[in-house]
Amino acid sequence: MEAGGVSKGPGKPGFGANQGVSVLDFVLRIVAFVCTLGSAIAMGTTNETLPFVTQFIRFRARFNDLPTFTFFVVANSVASAYLFFSLPLSIFHIIKSGSQNSRIVLVILDTLVQALVIAGASASAAIVYLAHKGNTRTNWFSICQQFNSFCERTSGSLIGSFGAAVILMLLVLLSGIALARR
Amino acid sequence: MEAGGVSKGPGKPGFGANQGVSVLDFVLRIVAFVCTLGSAIAMGTTNETLPFVTQFIRFRARFNDLPTFTFFVVANSVASAYLFFSLPLSIFHIIKSGSQNSRIVLVILDTLVQALVIAGASASAAIVYLAHKGNTRTNWFSICQQFNSFCERTSGSLIGSFGAAVILMLLVLLSGIALARR
Repeated sequence: MEAGGVSKGPGKPGFGANQGVSVLDFVLRIVAFVCTLGSAIAMGTTNETLPFVTQFIRFRARFNDLPTFTFFVVANSVASAYLFFSLPLSIFHIIKSGSQNSRIVLVILDTLVQALVIAGASASAAIVYLAHKGNTRTNWFSICQQFNSFCERTSGSLIGSFGAAVILMLLVLLSGIALARR
Repeated sequence: MEAGGVSKGPGKPGFGANQGVSVLDFVLRIVAFVCTLGSAIAMGTTNETLPFVTQFIRFRARFNDLPTFTFFVVANSVASAYLFFSLPLSIFHIIKSGSQNSRIVLVILDTLVQALVIAGASASAAIVYLAHKGNTRTNWFSICQQFNSFCERTSGSLIGSFGAAVILMLLVLLSGIALARR
């Protein structure tokens, strides 16, 4: 068994366990970065002006008319910045797969950022649902009849954020597995 | 090293590391169970009938007038049921602190339930904010002027849920640490 291990080289037994997980971690981190950045940009540039004006009002809907959407943009921007700056650490884990302390730091930060992304995405989903369906009991009427493109854009930007949330949950679990296998 | 381990007894080296973490895990799990159950009950029993009627309408606000609050109750009920049934496994980890597979199962389920609780709490927070402040741009008016006790009750029930979310995040991290120390 040992002879077989030597013939494969000293780094190989570690590769199967932790280095593979580290490579997957790196790839998922890039995907989550793209998702959160895309969501933040898609929501942050949402701006619809209706093609008619009255004497007093120009009908216009921007994402920051709703504070929840502002929170969504901030949460996804923070998450994408964090994911970008965590990439070097992820590369470090591919090279040095036995490191433990840096993994623990990363799993703590991943957990916090994942919570932030989930919070932003689900709060916005609640508002998007209200914008689409309205609520007759509270007299909150649907705004999607008028602001059609605004609604489509805000709904679409949730997809990337929920995708990123799932990926970040996977990253936390992967780090747990990597720590267990160390 | 092995002689030192024997002199301390076979169970002792594990106690300082993992058994302490397991006891903390058990205590936090009970607290989170109480928080989610309390939140689910507080929100689920929210029901305010105003003391005046018109010819056509009896003014009444229940939690399930808003689908987001129904989701909140379901999410917190599921979480409290899960936390209750995870207690025996947590006790098992205190007794047998070296077990790994059951810890991995628990950390995966904890991550999912934590995401569910955060999603429910933040979606409801977005709606509660809207109920308090309203939004002039979309003509969604505050309902807290009329339904004062409804608003207070729904706002209050968020506290337990956010507390449980933080505790569940800690549980995920604790499991990660326990797996790393094994």
